[in-house]
Amino acid sequence: MSQKKAPEKPTGNHTSVEMEMADMVGKPLGGPGTQPTKPVRKKSSESMTSDPDLYYSVEDLRSEPPPGEPVSNRIRPMLGQGKHEAGALFFKDGYRRIDYVLAFPVPRRKHPVKVEHKPEDDSSAFHPEGEDQKVRRRREFEKNLIEAGLDLERDDEGARTKKCVTALLSQLHGSQIASREPTKDHGMCFVRLHAPWKVLSQYAEILKIKMPTKKIYELKERTGIKAKAYALWRKTIKPLQPSPQAKQVDKEPYKHISYTFSRDKEHMFHIESRETFFKPSTRSLVVHEILKRTRYSQKDYAIGITNLIAQGVYTAAYPLHEGEFEGDTDIPPNPRQMLFDEWGSYSKFVKFQPLNLIRNYFGEKIGMYFAWLGLYTKLLIPSSLVGLIVFLYGVFTMDDNVPSDEVCEAYNITMCPLCDRECKYWRLSDSCKSAKFSHLFDNEVTVFFSIFMSLWATWFLENWKRKQMELNYAWDLSGFEEEEEQPRPEYEARLVKHRIEQSDKTGEEVKLPKKQTLFAVGVSSVTILTMFTVTLAAVFAVIMYRLSVASALAIYPNSGQIVSGTAVTLNLIVILILDEIYGSVAAFLTNLECPRTETEYEDKLIFKLFLLKFVNSYASIFYVAFFKGRFMGRPGQYIYAAPGLRMEECGPGGCLYELCIQLSIIMAGKQLIQNNVMEIGMPKLKKFLRECTCFGLCKERAERAEDKAGPRDTRWEEDLVLEPFSGLSPEYLEMIIQFGFVTIFVASFPLAPLLALVNNVLEIRLDARKFVQELRRPMAERAKDIGIWYNILKGITKISVIVNAFVIAITSNFIPRTVYQYMYSPDGSLHGFIDWSLSTFNVSDFEPGSEPRDNRSLGEVVQFCRYRDFRDAPWEAEPYKYNLAYWHIFAARLGFVICFQNFIIFLRDFIGYIIPDVPKELDEQIKKENKIMMDALIHEENVRQGEVEMDPEKEPL
Amino acid sequence: MSQKKAPEKPTGNHTSVEMEMADMVGKPLGGPGTQPTKPVRKKSSESMTSDPDLYYSVEDLRSEPPPGEPVSNRIRPMLGQGKHEAGALFFKDGYRRIDYVLAFPVPRRKHPVKVEHKPEDDSSAFHPEGEDQKVRRRREFEKNLIEAGLDLERDDEGARTKKCVTALLSQLHGSQIASREPTKDHGMCFVRLHAPWKVLSQYAEILKIKMPTKKIYELKERTGIKAKAYALWRKTIKPLQPSPQAKQVDKEPYKHISYTFSRDKEHMFHIESRETFFKPSTRSLVVHEILKRTRYSQKDYAIGITNLIAQGVYTAAYPLHEGEFEGDTDIPPNPRQMLFDEWGSYSKFVKFQPLNLIRNYFGEKIGMYFAWLGLYTKLLIPSSLVGLIVFLYGVFTMDDNVPSDEVCEAYNITMCPLCDRECKYWRLSDSCKSAKFSHLFDNEVTVFFSIFMSLWATWFLENWKRKQMELNYAWDLSGFEEEEEQPRPEYEARLVKHRIEQSDKTGEEVKLPKKQTLFAVGVSSVTILTMFTVTLAAVFAVIMYRLSVASALAIYPNSGQIVSGTAVTLNLIVILILDEIYGSVAAFLTNLECPRTETEYEDKLIFKLFLLKFVNSYASIFYVAFFKGRFMGRPGQYIYAAPGLRMEECGPGGCLYELCIQLSIIMAGKQLIQNNVMEIGMPKLKKFLRECTCFGLCKERAERAEDKAGPRDTRWEEDLVLEPFSGLSPEYLEMIIQFGFVTIFVASFPLAPLLALVNNVLEIRLDARKFVQELRRPMAERAKDIGIWYNILKGITKISVIVNAFVIAITSNFIPRTVYQYMYSPDGSLHGFIDWSLSTFNVSDFEPGSEPRDNRSLGEVVQFCRYRDFRDAPWEAEPYKYNLAYWHIFAARLGFVICFQNFIIFLRDFIGYIIPDVPKELDEQIKKENKIMMDALIHEENVRQGEVEMDPEKEPL
Repeated sequence: MSQKKAPEKPTGNHTSVEMEMADMVGKPLGGPGTQPTKPVRKKSSESMTSDPDLYYSVEDLRSEPPPGEPVSNRIRPMLGQGKHEAGALFFKDGYRRIDYVLAFPVPRRKHPVKVEHKPEDDSSAFHPEGEDQKVRRRREFEKNLIEAGLDLERDDEGARTKKCVTALLSQLHGSQIASREPTKDHGMCFVRLHAPWKVLSQYAEILKIKMPTKKIYELKERTGIKAKAYALWRKTIKPLQPSPQAKQVDKEPYKHISYTFSRDKEHMFHIESRETFFKPSTRSLVVHEILKRTRYSQKDYAIGITNLIAQGVYTAAYPLHEGEFEGDTDIPPNPRQMLFDEWGSYSKFVKFQPLNLIRNYFGEKIGMYFAWLGLYTKLLIPSSLVGLIVFLYGVFTMDDNVPSDEVCEAYNITMCPLCDRECKYWRLSDSCKSAKFSHLFDNEVTVFFSIFMSLWATWFLENWKRKQMELNYAWDLSGFEEEEEQPRPEYEARLVKHRIEQSDKTGEEVKLPKKQTLFAVGVSSVTILTMFTVTLAAVFAVIMYRLSVASALAIYPNSGQIVSGTAVTLNLIVILILDEIYGSVAAFLTNLECPRTETEYEDKLIFKLFLLKFVNSYASIFYVAFFKGRFMGRPGQYIYAAPGLRMEECGPGGCLYELCIQLSIIMAGKQLIQNNVMEIGMPKLKKFLRECTCFGLCKERAERAEDKAGPRDTRWEEDLVLEPFSGLSPEYLEMIIQFGFVTIFVASFPLAPLLALVNNVLEIRLDARKFVQELRRPMAERAKDIGIWYNILKGITKISVIVNAFVIAITSNFIPRTVYQYMYSPDGSLHGFIDWSLSTFNVSDFEPGSEPRDNRSLGEVVQFCRYRDFRDAPWEAEPYKYNLAYWHIFAARLGFVICFQNFIIFLRDFIGYIIPDVPKELDEQIKKENKIMMDALIHEENVRQGEVEMDPEKEPL
Repeated sequence: MSQKKAPEKPTGNHTSVEMEMADMVGKPLGGPGTQPTKPVRKKSSESMTSDPDLYYSVEDLRSEPPPGEPVSNRIRPMLGQGKHEAGALFFKDGYRRIDYVLAFPVPRRKHPVKVEHKPEDDSSAFHPEGEDQKVRRRREFEKNLIEAGLDLERDDEGARTKKCVTALLSQLHGSQIASREPTKDHGMCFVRLHAPWKVLSQYAEILKIKMPTKKIYELKERTGIKAKAYALWRKTIKPLQPSPQAKQVDKEPYKHISYTFSRDKEHMFHIESRETFFKPSTRSLVVHEILKRTRYSQKDYAIGITNLIAQGVYTAAYPLHEGEFEGDTDIPPNPRQMLFDEWGSYSKFVKFQPLNLIRNYFGEKIGMYFAWLGLYTKLLIPSSLVGLIVFLYGVFTMDDNVPSDEVCEAYNITMCPLCDRECKYWRLSDSCKSAKFSHLFDNEVTVFFSIFMSLWATWFLENWKRKQMELNYAWDLSGFEEEEEQPRPEYEARLVKHRIEQSDKTGEEVKLPKKQTLFAVGVSSVTILTMFTVTLAAVFAVIMYRLSVASALAIYPNSGQIVSGTAVTLNLIVILILDEIYGSVAAFLTNLECPRTETEYEDKLIFKLFLLKFVNSYASIFYVAFFKGRFMGRPGQYIYAAPGLRMEECGPGGCLYELCIQLSIIMAGKQLIQNNVMEIGMPKLKKFLRECTCFGLCKERAERAEDKAGPRDTRWEEDLVLEPFSGLSPEYLEMIIQFGFVTIFVASFPLAPLLALVNNVLEIRLDARKFVQELRRPMAERAKDIGIWYNILKGITKISVIVNAFVIAITSNFIPRTVYQYMYSPDGSLHGFIDWSLSTFNVSDFEPGSEPRDNRSLGEVVQFCRYRDFRDAPWEAEPYKYNLAYWHIFAARLGFVICFQNFIIFLRDFIGYIIPDVPKELDEQIKKENKIMMDALIHEENVRQGEVEMDPEKEPL
């Protein structure tokens, strides 16, 4: 509205705007409530050209000095957590905490421009046409923030901010002030926000935030044997706990019961000081809530900071980090320092994470992620141990193993060649080493380890459910409900565009037309399918590589290892490259679909990312596990992938051996390169780039770095150059893929959990450092759970059962061994197994041209060679037909899958049933607390009523 | 405390008691708050001997006349829902609604007894030693109820109540008044409770009950094709909807948004009248809450009406039905009448249930059950239809079916005898009829129907989840949290006993010792296992019966049908008897375990009931499906269950045929007898018995029935003789067992869903009549879901998949047919299948003594007979060894199980994934409503703040 009036005189018409604003639904709290606001604002807007404290408003806080009183913010001790650091976290008065910072750039401009005031149309709501538009929106937005009850401050100290203000003024008034310093008329401006008690308490009530009351719940001391065991346990893990101050738990044997905050019951809450009652994360949440709901123009959809950032009106909006993470400036250390020391330090890798501290600093959503990661890592310890034992069992029994001994002694068994023409006959004893190696992973214990890991996965999920409940309780999240989200700016922009195209039908159309959405979904599906094909093509390409190189190098001895090694490495490289590509593809497709809300966007993105990356990571492994060597035909009747290229046969060590190699290299390589190298390197690189762009020129920064005596960067400047927080999806995804390695193919590689454990111990500290050091402080979001990821984990667990069943049944030699031992062996031992498992081939039956060039082995002409299969001998009625043993084994394989799968499903459901979702003690405690609180409320009511009755004025008898 | 003072003069010391009471935590709301209480109570307690309105207190309701004003409660029109019926639902003043009734008996006694006042010890808290103790407790309890803010009334009209009061007084004062009417000094007394607005609003706030606000949400009119389809759909199902007044939905295209009730926001709520704002069910909930929390003595655990009822201090506590269910006395009809007409009437069997009406009358928990039952029944319609089609397909293809035709034409195939010695050789063509009948259920479509039903079960569960969400939303349950339950009286009694035995250690021991619990659990487990054995023994006994009778009757033709028929009937009878026994056993065991809370009790009871009844219902069916005919050996090498009793062979029609017979008879018989006959008969019988015991003598009632001119029974008298509501577990259990029949073995009996549908359509009306007519009105409990039953349903769905897989793979002939068709058939058809599926036996290989007496068939001496199996012929190398076809079929069976199971699991999870738990529209609506409400609250805040600012007194500038 104000834009239509004389633009050169933007002051003095606030009152009318206010009147109109007051009727709007959706206007944030506060309104005319912040009493001293009006006069101050009036004054400031009148004196705009001279007073840099634009829109400065003051809340009449109890413990604060009157706003006029001059306070040196460098000297006076700060309130809140006893910090004495330089006043960077507070307004100039040294009292009011900075809860949020908005940053916007003032671009370099050659000529001062007059602010044009053409009426805005709908489309311009999303495409501000120039700097003047932006300035107007900022002005309107900040005015409304003040009306909502927030305190604003624009700093005037230091060259940068002065520059910013002058630049702003030059735009507003078209004056030539800015041109006095022609090289410095660009840079960043900051608006700092403070939420006074009134706003905080209002929103805490509306957002149903639970806060500690004076009511106390006494934590029972356990008695009896349990207590002693528990005490011993605590003593044992004491060195693993973070330091007490970082744990942030009451030492007292009681806790304050939390209850939804309510202003008319304020006296019931445990308020030591109004300034510190709400945690910084809650404060930033409240301010964010206001920023989300505040209008910046009268247009439709012209609401919220997200839109403004998308339009470039502001560059960024973020809460501040609480000081430096390094150095001893703060005693006691500030929370960021504490986090860095206790959590981000590699030397603390054996310790638990200080979860409460993380939650208080970063909010519940991020806290949830680290709690999950911590639990996962912790529970990896037992599975690593068991995996190691299984591996060691393999190592120690390697020499007592009958089948591999038989292989090593089988000098007289001539095997059919592994490829056409070039390959020679070979003796089974040649594969002695790989047979022994294969035994490491393919022994009697493998089945038990598979069962163990399947149950472990379920147990982990159940434990997480419990942990989640505990956290929900400890972090007071139980009453938290989700509210309608605001649409994403991109969605709104497209909606507006669509409405304009439809010649502004003013229907109640709040959604994009189905056609557009369907089109986007169609494109997505097709693209994803294409990408699947690309993945499979990549796998196939590597196979072709292996086949061609193998047949080319067949004449050289030991070429197999080289071929395998290069092929796997090639696989790994392809996976890494495709992973990066798929990341961009998924983002592109999701943007194309243009989902309405941030949650929808995230869900769709995650779904695509997961599909693409999962298939990418596992395609080659699946190939080795289930296809390699299954469809190669038999000697004399080989199947060819391409003319001259016989289908791959598993190497002399068997298929499980190859699967194990494939798995270990891909898993280790992926983690090393993707998780660690890139995760450390990328933020540093990005930070460097951003520093350059944000502040115009790296040169400038370099200058200042040299000039140490110059003014230090303020907190908000330092935070601005940090990488913005971009969500937890990549972190989760990385872990989920790893979880897949640990569970899905664990039967073939018992060391996978150990590998994962080592990675995660590092990963936690790496992530911690990233969050504390490299990232802007994220807004403290609330979340009750880990969302869609839980279901994905559950899905992986389900897949893992069936895959493990098939790996044991089909890939490993477990079933043939067992069948031999119990149905065919003359003495119940495995002696003779190797001979039994080989069929005989008459070399005269080779297809012409495929017989080996060298028809001798050990100097003798070969008549019969052996191959791994269960077929009738050439001299029987139907040569090369599958024999009865084949069908026995086949039935046994299938029977094993059924038994294994259903046994695991049963055990899994049983575990799920006997482990209650809510720990029993916690459940009792919650219910008891509810009861105490209820009684207290009833008591409170009685007291209040008593008072009312005492008061003769209120309700006369 | 009051007991220690002069007992003969119980008046006048109320004030001191009050003072002590006021300090108690856990004292219910109200306290001294109900202002006019004190003087009135004072008066009444002083004039106790003359004034029957003992403890009568009055709430100063806005719309009420002053309490002194005499009001005829028979003439004056009543408030609330415009009812004009006799004032039975209101206090004498005709205004205050009766929200709850307490009843207690006054026993016949020969000599007036002096009330003894020995100090109570802890044990007496649960074992009142005499009538005087009871009287004292009632007095204390009712006094505390008044302090909590409730209004109480003891009626003085009618002989019964006068009698009651005089009887009471005679006990209290030891006077001889009662002896004036020596034959009438026994009977029932009633205390009627009313919750005034103050109490209701206080508790609504504390219990976080959501109520409609003035804020309105406009229900969008759909547009486009969807809308037309929807309108058409609505028009189609219009005749199925209950009448509009019974539906109780707003006709307006908007709804009032609900929000947690809060007194200081009262003006925001949609209150037409304070008397009708809270529904009767909410009112009874609030009163129940108070009854639960009120003390009746100063002893530990001496809290709550449940304890008092357990001690016999009161007989019953219940809310009143809203008038008669029959007759046209009320115009418009009262809710109970409406329920009876619209819901309980058999003629309305095609209509949907009036769920909102049910919920408003019986509360959310019962509403949830009927919603579930309704959805289940509705979804049975498609499955019945498909089942019918499958059945009809079988009927129509019966004559084109190659295998059964081959059986019918197989005059020359001589089959081996079905039992030793007595049985004869038989021709395969003899089993022509049963082969044709078998085809009805064992054809190509069976597999698809199995898949369909497995998915149907999942679809049903998903639909229920959605329905549940819709109901949660429509019934405003989303914010409802559970609070700690009070321990059961039995538990507390045992706890007190335990403490006394331990010589009154005053430790904080709030639990029974582990030892006792463990012992009980041990006993339970052993008993349950024993019961399992009993079930299996019963099944085995029936088998033995069948075997013995079969061999005894073997010489008679067609004896097979008789044997089968009687055996199945025997099975059914055993199941029905054991079901009743198991009901008692489960209750006994659960009482032995003595769980702490009502929920725990219910869960444990349900668990036991489910285990026992499930095993009982299905054991015989499992036997027929998977064991009968599997372990019978082969001719010449039969396996014997007992000497002379060969293991059962499936009849000539095959095993699936028998399974089908077994299943249909047990399912139909169980439903007919157990659900319908017993459910109708039992309550009527019980009511008759209770009428006799409650009012002393049936004679008296009979007298009054003759004497029609006498005063009608009051509402509370009529309700007292009704059966008390005993929980929903039996209703659910019945349905769950049925659900098992419908899903677990559906492959063998496609008509099961139809049978269930017919039963349920009746069941709903039957249950409805029971609830409206035969049961006392239950307290309106809140519940968000159907609790443990959902998980049980899910478990059954899981079991059903694997069982169906095995039924198709093993019991039916599907796999052998398929294997023959695709692997062995010369022309790809089923011709020759019958011959292929029979092995040959040389009769000379019979074990001596087991060969049939009659070694001829059709006059010729038999040399070779045939039997169903896949074994090598007698003339082959290894006679009677399983042949290759056997192994092919075996592998195919197992492969089928794996594929079927995983396919279904995959589809199931997929369905679960694509059907969102919360319907999308509902989700949007909920979020939008939350937003509207939030905005309204913020607006409200602004308005309020504005007012505060206007008010110069409150916050001076």
